[in-house]
Order: sequence, then C-alpha cells, then structure tokens
Amino acid sequence: MRLWLVCTCLCLSSLEYKQKMHPQTGIVLTTGYRLSFVCSVLRSAPPCSKFFSVKHTADVQYSINPPRSEADHLSPIPLNDDTVLLFSMKKASEEENDNKLSVRYYGTDKKMLGTAVLHLTAVEISLDVDADRDGIVEKNNPNKGCWKWGPDGHGAIILVNCDSERRWRKLDHEQDFIDRESDLKDMTTMVLRTKGPAKLPEGYKLTMHISQGDAESIRVYTSADGHRYPLILQSACLSAEVLYRRGFAENKFYVEGIRFPDKDFDGLVTINLSLLEPIGPGIPETPIFTDKVVLRIAPWIMTPNTLTPKEVFVCSTTDNYTFLKEIRSFVAKSGHNLKICHEYMNRGDHRGLVDFPYEKLLGPDFGYVTKKAQKEDVNSLDSFGNLEVSPPVTVNGKKYPLGRIIIGVAFPTAAQGRNMTQVIQDFLWAQKVQEPIALFSDWLCIGHVDEFMTFVPAPDKNGFRLLLASPDAGYKLFKSLSKQGHGNATLFDGSINTHSQLYLSQKGLQDHNNYVQSCIDWNRDVLKRELGLDEGDIIDLPILFKLVKEDEEVRALAYYPDVVNMLVLGKNLGIPKPFGPKVNGRCAIEAEVCSLLEPLGLSCTFIDNFASYHQLLGEVHCGSNVRREPFDFKWWNMEM
Amino acid sequence: MRLWLVCTCLCLSSLEYKQKMHPQTGIVLTTGYRLSFVCSVLRSAPPCSKFFSVKHTADVQYSINPPRSEADHLSPIPLNDDTVLLFSMKKASEEENDNKLSVRYYGTDKKMLGTAVLHLTAVEISLDVDADRDGIVEKNNPNKGCWKWGPDGHGAIILVNCDSERRWRKLDHEQDFIDRESDLKDMTTMVLRTKGPAKLPEGYKLTMHISQGDAESIRVYTSADGHRYPLILQSACLSAEVLYRRGFAENKFYVEGIRFPDKDFDGLVTINLSLLEPIGPGIPETPIFTDKVVLRIAPWIMTPNTLTPKEVFVCSTTDNYTFLKEIRSFVAKSGHNLKICHEYMNRGDHRGLVDFPYEKLLGPDFGYVTKKAQKEDVNSLDSFGNLEVSPPVTVNGKKYPLGRIIIGVAFPTAAQGRNMTQVIQDFLWAQKVQEPIALFSDWLCIGHVDEFMTFVPAPDKNGFRLLLASPDAGYKLFKSLSKQGHGNATLFDGSINTHSQLYLSQKGLQDHNNYVQSCIDWNRDVLKRELGLDEGDIIDLPILFKLVKEDEEVRALAYYPDVVNMLVLGKNLGIPKPFGPKVNGRCAIEAEVCSLLEPLGLSCTFIDNFASYHQLLGEVHCGSNVRREPFDFKWWNMEM
Repeated sequence: MRLWLVCTCLCLSSLEYKQKMHPQTGIVLTTGYRLSFVCSVLRSAPPCSKFFSVKHTADVQYSINPPRSEADHLSPIPLNDDTVLLFSMKKASEEENDNKLSVRYYGTDKKMLGTAVLHLTAVEISLDVDADRDGIVEKNNPNKGCWKWGPDGHGAIILVNCDSERRWRKLDHEQDFIDRESDLKDMTTMVLRTKGPAKLPEGYKLTMHISQGDAESIRVYTSADGHRYPLILQSACLSAEVLYRRGFAENKFYVEGIRFPDKDFDGLVTINLSLLEPIGPGIPETPIFTDKVVLRIAPWIMTPNTLTPKEVFVCSTTDNYTFLKEIRSFVAKSGHNLKICHEYMNRGDHRGLVDFPYEKLLGPDFGYVTKKAQKEDVNSLDSFGNLEVSPPVTVNGKKYPLGRIIIGVAFPTAAQGRNMTQVIQDFLWAQKVQEPIALFSDWLCIGHVDEFMTFVPAPDKNGFRLLLASPDAGYKLFKSLSKQGHGNATLFDGSINTHSQLYLSQKGLQDHNNYVQSCIDWNRDVLKRELGLDEGDIIDLPILFKLVKEDEEVRALAYYPDVVNMLVLGKNLGIPKPFGPKVNGRCAIEAEVCSLLEPLGLSCTFIDNFASYHQLLGEVHCGSNVRREPFDFKWWNMEM
Repeated sequence: MRLWLVCTCLCLSSLEYKQKMHPQTGIVLTTGYRLSFVCSVLRSAPPCSKFFSVKHTADVQYSINPPRSEADHLSPIPLNDDTVLLFSMKKASEEENDNKLSVRYYGTDKKMLGTAVLHLTAVEISLDVDADRDGIVEKNNPNKGCWKWGPDGHGAIILVNCDSERRWRKLDHEQDFIDRESDLKDMTTMVLRTKGPAKLPEGYKLTMHISQGDAESIRVYTSADGHRYPLILQSACLSAEVLYRRGFAENKFYVEGIRFPDKDFDGLVTINLSLLEPIGPGIPETPIFTDKVVLRIAPWIMTPNTLTPKEVFVCSTTDNYTFLKEIRSFVAKSGHNLKICHEYMNRGDHRGLVDFPYEKLLGPDFGYVTKKAQKEDVNSLDSFGNLEVSPPVTVNGKKYPLGRIIIGVAFPTAAQGRNMTQVIQDFLWAQKVQEPIALFSDWLCIGHVDEFMTFVPAPDKNGFRLLLASPDAGYKLFKSLSKQGHGNATLFDGSINTHSQLYLSQKGLQDHNNYVQSCIDWNRDVLKRELGLDEGDIIDLPILFKLVKEDEEVRALAYYPDVVNMLVLGKNLGIPKPFGPKVNGRCAIEAEVCSLLEPLGLSCTFIDNFASYHQLLGEVHCGSNVRREPFDFKWWNMEM
C-alpha cells in the first residue's frame, strides 16, 4: 500500500490530479504546473479511508470542495465520493521541492491509515510584450493574449522590417540573421520573465513556438550574449527550446515582421511559450502550461497631400531642362529639399525608374514593398498616379483619421475595362486603416485618378478641399471670355494656333466634354458619399478634355495642361502651366485657378511641363514624387 | 443667343447642371436622371441677366439655393454668382417629356431677356431583393445596398446551388442553364421594378452588372417568358442590357450561388443596375444612375449531436454482420431510419466510400462541397471523425447559437506534426457562423477528436454534456474493482486473456495513460475556455489507452473499445461494447458508463464493434453517419 502513501518529488501519479484552467492568469506553476490543482482526495486514499486532514508548508494554500466550514479543517474531515482538494502556491520556489503538502487518511475510528505527500516546486513564467503600447514591455499584461483596436485597445505591434540598415539593394528581412544592432530597433522586443529555483526539475523544459501560417509573417531572434542574436523561430523551425535561468530572469527576444497584411493574412500573429513535462522514456512530453502573446503587423500607410513634405523627387532627362529649372525654384521657394534622379538612373524617366528606389531610396528607416501581378494583366492603371489618399475624414460618424486610399478602376458596365491588378487591390484593402475607395478612371487614356482630382490643404471645414477637373467650369470660363470680347485670344502662347473662341464652336468637343463631365460627376458623387463631403468641400478647376480612339476604345486626354495634376507642398502648389488665352497679358486659366485657390491661403506657381510631360500624357504630379512626414495619429488607435 | 434660351427635350447641355447625389433614395429619374438636379441658374443665363423666375408643370418641384423667402418666388428673384436651382419630379412620367420647367431671365430693369426650358421625363427604377428576410421581395428597401448580421440586421441571402434536381452525379451549379423550374427554388429571386413612359428616351438603356470577383461566386438568370430562364451574368459576361417595359413593370431575375465563403471570399456579392445615357455617336455611354443590392452567400453549417436525427448511414461489409444486426436494432429502437451502403458501393468501407455520396445522397435539396488539398499533404487528420461541432453555447456573453466547429491538429511544439490540410481549415474558418476550435489530436494514431470526446443531450445546464475519454477514470474504476476483490475478472469476454488487475501492475501502461491524460487535459482546458464550460458540464468516461510506435512517432490507441466514440440519436446512445471485466455477470465498464449517463435520461445500448471496427482502429461513431434536422435558428440572425 505504500505505493500511494508517499509521493516524493515529481512522481505525482499516485496522487491523482486534474489541472485547473487559468489561461489568463496562470503564471505560477507548482512542480511545473500552473498555480492551482484540483486533486481528488478520494482517489489517492487507502482503502477504508473515511476521514482526511491536510498539512502544508508556509507557501502553500488550499481549499476543499465542496466547501467545509473553517472549524472542520482542524480535525479530520469526512471523505466523500466528490471530495476535491484545490491547492496552489503563493510564490515561486527558491529551491526545487521547497514546499510540501500532505494528506493524512483515517478510518472509521479516526485511526490514521496512511499519508500522501506532495513535494512542490513553483515557477513563475510570463511571456511579455508591450501590450499597452507605451514603449515598455510590462509584466504579464492581462490583455497580452488578444488584440483590440482603438484608444481603449491593447495588443503589441510589429513592423515589417523592409528597410535596409546597409544601403544595399537588399531588405533587412531578406536575410535571416542580424548583423547590426540598429536593426533591433525595427523589431518588437519580447521578454520571457521566469522566477524559480536554480534549474527546472529534471526533464522539464521551456519551448517557444509559432504556427506554420504565422511563420510566413514573422521570425523570432533571441539574444545570446548581448551581441549575438541567433534566429530561433522561422518557417523551417516552428518550435525551439529556450533557456531557463536561475532566480528572476528576463530573456529578451526580437520579433521581426516579414510581410504586410494581405488578402490571406489579417496581420495578427501569436507566439506561444510552453512548459513541457516529461512522462517517461519514449513517451512524448506534454505541454502543462502555455502562455501566449498576440501581436499585429503594422499596415502599409499612405501620406496625403495635407502632410508636411520632407523631400521632393524629380527626374532629370534630356528634354526637361525648363521643367527642372522651374521645379527647382518652386521647391526651393517652398523651403523643401529636391532630390534629382539623374538620367543614367532613370533611363529617360517615365518607365525606366525601376532601379531608383533600390539604389537611392532604400536605407535605414526607408523600406519598400512590392507585389507581383499573378497574370500578365498589368496596365496603365497599375501606375501610382492611380493610387492616391485623402486627408483624414469623418463619414456619417465613422472616423478615418488616416484618410482613405483612392484608386481608379473600370466601370463594370464596360465589357473589357482596365483595372488595377487584383493583387495590388487585395493588398490595399488588407491594410484596413485607410479603407480604399474605387473610382471610375478607365475613361481616361492613361486612366489615373490624379488626372481629375487632388486634395489641397485649407484653413477651414475639413482642413482640405477636393479639387476636381471640370469641363463645365472650362466652358463657363471660355464663354465668359467670349462674352467679354476675348474670344480671339490665343492659347498655348501662340505656339499652337488655337483661339479660345474655337472651343465654343466645336460641337464635337462639347460632346466629348459632356461625356467627361458625366464621368467626373459620377466620381464626384462617389467621393462625396465615401468621404462625407458636401459641395462646399469641392472646387471645380476649368479643364477641357478631348476624346481619342485607341484600341477600339474611346478615351479622354486633357486638352491643355491639366491644372489639377499639381504638386502640393504645404500651401505652395506647383501647377502645370495651362498656356490659356492671354487677357491683358495674363493667362485667363491661371487667373481663374488663382482666384479659386488663393482665398484658401494657397500660393500658385505655374510650371511649364508642356513639352516635357504634357505632350507625353503626364503633368507635374505625374513627373514628381513627395516623401512626407508620417501621421502623428497612431494607426492602432483607429476604431474599427 | 437662342442657343441657350430654349432647351428642348433631352438636349440639356445648354442648361448646365450638376447631378445631386441621393444614393439611398434616388429612384425617380427626371429625363433619365435621378429625381433631383442642381442647376446653376447663372450659367444658363443670357448676358446682363440680373433677375430670374421659375415656372413648371404640376409634377415638378424645385427649390432655390441659397434659400429665399417664399414671397420672393412670385416676383423676379435677384440672380447672384452662386444661385442654384434644385428641382425634382414628384412621380414617374406617363409619357416622354410630359413635364416642363422653365426659367425666365430679366435685365436690370426687370425686362425679360429670354427663357430656358427643360422638358422632363421621370422614370422610377428599383432593383429589389428580400433585404428584410421575410420571404417577400419588397420594393426599394433602404437597406438593400448593405448587409448586416443579427436580429436587427438586413440584407438578402443566396444559397450555393450544390444539390441536384436530377439525381445525377452533377451539381446544379456545374451547369450554366436552368432546365427544371424546381431549381429556381434554390436561387434568390431579384426583381427589377420600373415605372415610366412607354419607352425610355432614345439611346438610354438599362444594364445589370457584377464585378469579375463576384462572378466567381454567383450567376444571374432572367425570366424570358415564364418558361425559359436565360443566363445573363456570369464570369464570361459581366454586364448585360435588361429590358425596360412600359408602365409599371416587374422583371424577375434569379441569383445562383456557385461557391461557399472561403479564405479569399467573405461571402458578400453586389449586383448593380445602371441607367446609361448616350452622349453622342462614337462616345461611350455614361451611367447616370446606379442602384445596387448586396447579398450574402449562405455558409456551410454542421449539425451537432443535439439535433434530431433523420437518417443513419452505415456500411455493410463482409465482416460486420454482428455490428450491422445490432446497429439495425438500435436505430429501429430509436425510431429512426437506417440506410445501408452495400458492399458493391463501399468497396469494403473504411476508405472506399468515395462514390456513395454522389450516387446515393446527392439529389434535390441534398448537395455537397469538396475542397482539393493544394499539396500532397492529406493525412488521417483530414477524415471527418476529426471534424465535429458543439451544441449551441454562450462564451463570456458571446453567443454561438449554431455551436462551434471542432477539429484536431498537431500541437505546434511537435516539429513535424500532422494537421488537417490547410484548404479545409481555411474553408471551415471562412464560414464564420460556427467559429472553429482547434484541439490537439495528433497524439492519437488515427488523430481524430472523436476518439476522446463527444457531446450528448442533457435536460439541464447548457442542454448537453461534453463526454471525455479519461484514463484517470479508467484507473479509478479498475482500482475500485480490485479493491472490491474483482481484480481477476477477465476482459474481452475471456477471448483475450486479460485480467483487470493487470492494468494496475503495468508501470509502462500507467505511464502511457498519464501521457494520454495530459493530452486530454490540455484539450479539456481549451474546450472549457472556448465553449464556456465548467467541470459540471463534463463527464469523464473510463477509457484506457496504449502507446504504439509508428514512423518514429509514439501515438495512442484505445486499449479496449473506446466508449466515447458513440452514435448519438436523441436520448439513445449506441456505444461501442467495451468488453470490460464481468462483475456479477455484468460488464463493469458498461455499468460505470450507464451510471454516469442514465441520470441524464439517456439510454445506453452497447454495440459489438470489436472485430469489425475496433481492431481496425475505429468504433461505432467512425463506422456510421447521421443526417440531422437543420437548426431552427437562422444563421443570418447571429450577432457577429
């Protein structure tokens, strides 16, 4: 009978038990288990036991279920079929088996029949991240195992490590080792805190593990000696033993994001830490405690025109000397930094820029992401003049503090329209924090939303105005010029023999522009609805279009430089010089644009991009790029 | 100047206008446009106009912006830069151009300078579905364009047409025509309601359109003459003109679901109806009004043990005569219908059943869905003994009125565990309404969750109990038998020479079962947490396991028939006959199982599956299948 009368050390089998679940708070383990046990007192009792009593060392606490009155505990307690002992430890052990719990069993006459003894070792384990997002990895945040959006939300975040500490053409996450300590700042610090005896009881071990799916999105490194950072978890190795260290220990880990949220990945990953218990030789270990942390990979975020510019990028080509001179002067006047991409790099601009971002932009804290189209269906709508973002808006009470992404697609009534390729659309929608709006842009030859819309900062209302190209406003302007007797003023500085009067007399051109106005009106409706705008938020710029036939499709081009395709640097606007009819020595289109925008405190600079860009179907905005200050608003504070 | 003084018929261009957006309510069109227009009065005015007045026919209404006092309307109104006229029609036109609105313009001296006249045609258009889910396609439900879960939700639904009206091996949605009217009942009725003159003005047309993405999930048929149902929208044809009919007309359409929600498809589809306006020869039409309906494809839903059985399926094989006889008697006693799959069809059962569902089950209102694994990674965990569903539960206030799906996977600490194939997991999670729980089942040779758990109905608490296999309960039983002097009772009816005493003396077997108990305890914790259960919801059945080594992995098998692997038909349980030690002529394991389950009003029938299934690593549950009554609860009423 001694077999189940004395239970030493870790041999618990004779005192049968059931674990009790404390998934949220279970950090203290007794002899490798969580804080609390349920122990069936009856099952470990010698035959004929009718009563029992409990003794224990100072750090042990227990209760009996069903509950008895306190007085009962001092004398032998009747032993029933359903008697269960629930015990736990108050703090971590300093030595292995430094605590003890014993149960004495008595017969009918309260004669002692035997004693069952448990030696207990308690270990505290907590896998920690910065779940309250204050920059400090706090201990055992109760919310670390789930993730919630919003100002009252919680859950740690991970960056995609897509910059390069090396200024090579290689992203940091394209290598699976850390060779610069600065790279650690692009990763999320995770801490494994343990407290307990000098070592874990024989055969017990700690393992960290992730799922195969999550391993496509993150890697975990550890800190070996403060200088080396071995990779421990990745898709080829989902589970790794981690070191247990004596006393109170804090092991640091570094979590690296390797992909952005996408159609098949919501951005959430889980990292688990388990304590494994040995059962016997040749038998697998079983997890007896698992702690977990849930993190979200930061989305890819666009910066709207209302954010402060940091750098402006343009190309230098054989034929854009005038443009370059004017844009240089405009950017300097605006107080910003111009970066020129020279011809050996841009290979004539327009389509040859593929190497520039790798060679010149990629570097510390400046990364990139690429998506490969699945089919051979890439077209003009995949260029990023067709990818814009609104300033922050509130729509029917729903806040978009980072604005909304805007792309252009085909109107689906078209049998065979052009669309932005699906992998890009999927990627944009998956970022969630700037929920995209799809406009109808396939009516344009180039098909970019920036051919008919942009945003400029404004001191009032939503803090911005939506500028729309407007043939109606164009006709209105030309009619009023005609009415004022300027019908014969020449456009294009006289270099092309066009009189403003001509516009009014061409029925074909009027039809073309009625069509364009219908297309833009359609988008105006969508933008008003999806951005929560009213007519007062919109300014119509006088722009005429013409229709041309290409590949059996009739599509639109701006007739003169498309003033809405502008470069917005704070209050300074670099606008394509429209070369409109001169009235009293001043371009009437420029004058009209200024009269619409200057009341908002904006300053208009007209830049000649006629030969260099307009005739190649682009304008200032198409020919430039701006890096802006990121949002002050923290994306995780969005309410979803 | 007459050009813009008289505007006849549809030639609106001289009276410049902007559409006003009423996406939710805009169903009436004036001259093909939506109910309301904003008309810039100034732009259509003759030179020197200073005042204007408005006249109109009975069905027209208008307002002036900025607003003027009512008195002003009667006399000429001052004309300012920002004067805008907002007009609409009260009802649909009975004839083309049956209404008229005219604006008179006056000079400084209030002398009339000219008149602009608009002839107006109003058409009502509404694309309708059963957005309030009451079985009737109501007119223009304001919520038809969005979809919301819950009892206060809205939005129409679509079934996947995966049954067969023909009893062929072909699903209805595998053909793109309708040849039986009964098939229409598997589709969603959609109605296009129009009201207006005998025909649309020249060149205007109605088109219905869907996106390329949605065309992977639905098809749309129309009703040609009440007997033919031409397919009008599918992935090869995203847009189709639909007929406008005189007066008040209702055109019926039928929407067919062709795929279930999945990882890359959230189940929502949009169908659009646009009125296209002609601009001129060679110029594309533009949409001037679009109505849309949003529908959700019904998820795939599992039926838990607590639902009423309709039919029980078993196989007849060369070696299961006894089993078949007993199960026939059990099913008959339970009052249900038994369907036997004969040997020519099941080809020895176990793995040869692939043709049975096609040939015998598929038919009207009985369909199927298959998923193909992407890699060659299918294993035993992909069998559907590893796919169960809980009864309805509430977890921390969150309701799962359709229960939660339960699958078994590898514990991720295992370097190379077996998992249910990813496409199946993705599919299950995408259904959303029975949010899955992943248990750890890879510790079993076969690896199915039904080897250690099932659910039975109960009259109290949540309406069910979770039954778990329990080596602890097994040892408890055998110890108590031994204590009572029955240690030498033979198991397996004496046919295998095993005494219950033996279990207690085998240290190896005890280690094996400690391991198994650890694995089941792990799952017990997960089930308690994820189903919101407490200990009182769980019953432990006495089952011992043994570990065997296969492919270098140590995994578990039930030592004697696994009583938890039972067939649940209402209150009648068909339980694998365990062949435990006979005490006073009765199997002690059967007695213990009955004593645990009968108090719940359950009736236990023990079925001999020893030779026919147990020795082939299955039991009653593995060898049978049950079709049950679907839930009364409507899935769209779930709160998400």
